[in-house]
Amino acid sequence: MCEYGGSMTEPSVYNLPTPSLLLDVNRMTRNIQDFEARLGRLGVPLRPHVKTCKNFELTRNMMPDNAPGITVSTLAEADYFFSHGIEDQIYAVGIAPGKLDDVAERMDQGMRLKIILDNTISAGFVAEAARRLGCRFEVLLEIDSDGQRGGFGPNDAALIDAARELDAAGCRVLGVLTHMGASYNCRSRKCLVEAAEHERSTALAAAQALRQAGFDSPMVSIGSTPTARFAKTLDGITEVRAGTYVFMDLVMAGLGVCKPEDIAISVLSEVIGHRLDAGEWLIDAGWMALSRDRGTASQAIDYGYGRVCDDAGRLIDDLVVRSTNQEHGIVADRHGRPLAADRFRIGQRLRILPNHCCATAASHAGYWLVGEDREPSRWLDRCSGW
Amino acid sequence: MCEYGGSMTEPSVYNLPTPSLLLDVNRMTRNIQDFEARLGRLGVPLRPHVKTCKNFELTRNMMPDNAPGITVSTLAEADYFFSHGIEDQIYAVGIAPGKLDDVAERMDQGMRLKIILDNTISAGFVAEAARRLGCRFEVLLEIDSDGQRGGFGPNDAALIDAARELDAAGCRVLGVLTHMGASYNCRSRKCLVEAAEHERSTALAAAQALRQAGFDSPMVSIGSTPTARFAKTLDGITEVRAGTYVFMDLVMAGLGVCKPEDIAISVLSEVIGHRLDAGEWLIDAGWMALSRDRGTASQAIDYGYGRVCDDAGRLIDDLVVRSTNQEHGIVADRHGRPLAADRFRIGQRLRILPNHCCATAASHAGYWLVGEDREPSRWLDRCSGW
Repeated sequence: MCEYGGSMTEPSVYNLPTPSLLLDVNRMTRNIQDFEARLGRLGVPLRPHVKTCKNFELTRNMMPDNAPGITVSTLAEADYFFSHGIEDQIYAVGIAPGKLDDVAERMDQGMRLKIILDNTISAGFVAEAARRLGCRFEVLLEIDSDGQRGGFGPNDAALIDAARELDAAGCRVLGVLTHMGASYNCRSRKCLVEAAEHERSTALAAAQALRQAGFDSPMVSIGSTPTARFAKTLDGITEVRAGTYVFMDLVMAGLGVCKPEDIAISVLSEVIGHRLDAGEWLIDAGWMALSRDRGTASQAIDYGYGRVCDDAGRLIDDLVVRSTNQEHGIVADRHGRPLAADRFRIGQRLRILPNHCCATAASHAGYWLVGEDREPSRWLDRCSGW
Repeated sequence: MCEYGGSMTEPSVYNLPTPSLLLDVNRMTRNIQDFEARLGRLGVPLRPHVKTCKNFELTRNMMPDNAPGITVSTLAEADYFFSHGIEDQIYAVGIAPGKLDDVAERMDQGMRLKIILDNTISAGFVAEAARRLGCRFEVLLEIDSDGQRGGFGPNDAALIDAARELDAAGCRVLGVLTHMGASYNCRSRKCLVEAAEHERSTALAAAQALRQAGFDSPMVSIGSTPTARFAKTLDGITEVRAGTYVFMDLVMAGLGVCKPEDIAISVLSEVIGHRLDAGEWLIDAGWMALSRDRGTASQAIDYGYGRVCDDAGRLIDDLVVRSTNQEHGIVADRHGRPLAADRFRIGQRLRILPNHCCATAASHAGYWLVGEDREPSRWLDRCSGW
């Protein structure tokens, strides 16, 4: 009965347990090189956002010589990367008052952990903690460039009030930071170019307001993978933060930031059943392995829970994972055409490209590295938690 | 400035890092007791599905004296629970041919790991592996009761063909198994009652077909939390599999299976900013902590990414987490009414009830146990991976 499952006995990465997260090193390397080349042409240093990869070795490869440090999304990441020697970090989530003692403790240990905030009440908390703990917090003021989440308006009086309150408590006001998350909603190149320029000009306006109020504001930090990709100029910007570019994903492909063939991570799965009447197939990767992210649902092409590739990572027609349960996925044609009864074999392995690489990667403890030679792979773990 | 954040310095569970997953032990205990009492009245043993809790101590509490064993969704769960002494397990995902050697190895070690399959090709793989490895696999045949995923039809000739092929290879055909996942889509009590009866009658019809073909089919295993809750009778059924009932969630509440006040897990978070213009608030729990599950989106009431409670777990009006980023959530009124500028305080802690407890719990490494007395808590970990 070996004709059903020849791939099982090959001594290669295709013997990995399923589902597993694969990382195509060649694709990743090209993504990193392309992104760095682009920022090099724009003349702005890159501060990688590590919330996507959450691994030190990958992050080292993402840091050009002039990288000032990294961006983190949790204190768990801060600790993990500091333990690997990366001291300069921005914790890019508005600081929770309950975390200030933890931040101060890490600064005492030598971590240059910059925090962000976007309102005067939080500034008051930081000032209070600075006095109570004798800690000179380093603070970036978060600016709202898209009206979607938080941030001071660039001309808000509150921005200057917050800077003054922090300064009076001995904190260091480093400058401004913004993230144009709305760029993910763009549906045209024009929109993306405008979003990039809006991100830049909003950050610069806020930095200018701070400078006029007497704060030197040495940092003007912006960034997202789409805006960095479509920016015409980044004049005045001191660093770009981005993370998704390292792996790319279907949402980025939908935006025109990359091609599907650039996506470096995929979920390896095995065909476990067929729905002959429906012309669909079952795989052993559900939302637990793919994530519940449906980021392409609002784009021109909806890829369900992911796009289907063969075991070598080559795209297969218009096949998607139409629906998922916890450990099951249903592979179907995107247009609803039934698949032929011999389209797949039970036991065959498929790779699924993610809608959103941050979410899919977060569903796994680490990566199996694969290259084009299909050699047995090496494992890299991810840090997790908060 | 202590007036902003009184809760921070209390020596209680409200000092936990945020975001954290809380488990209200009293609510969970009532959920377990209610579910077991109901199955007791129906006269059917419970085989808990551990994919929801993924913890041994919680699972022990879910196993009545007559529980035949547990249901698992991954081999990682199988290993973890076997290491804690639970031998009788159903691995309730159609077996991937690539996992048969792993299953045989575990059976050699004393695990009574039953596998399932839903097609003759998979039966052929199992028969081949049984002969090759000298392993007497124990197999349940999966029956399709809702047309949504996989399964033999109860009257399919292929069902009998598969049983015969397995039997001829020395495998043990234990009977049938089905899961009426479509019950989650019901919008009325009548639909749920009918779904439960359909799940029962379909499984019985398949068992009857096997028996007529000469297989004793000692197991007739069905189950889901909604169908178990609404079944009028389970005559002929030998065990019920269910897991969600232990925690409950907003999807279950939307179905009428529980009340929101019964939901035992929640994500503890902290208010980190306000969007004064929009009348919304930012918290430090995003999709990484809440999951991307949007299970209530198709129900009568859409709770976004979760329903908002105060730090003691009491529901707050109609507040929901309207949208999320990786580590940010936006708290808003469900009807779009702006919240008052003094509705929350920066630094205040909130608990978020999950749409889907399996998905939200899977976002965390474990649980902080909390009771009504708000005493400092104990930590329970979860197994993870595949």
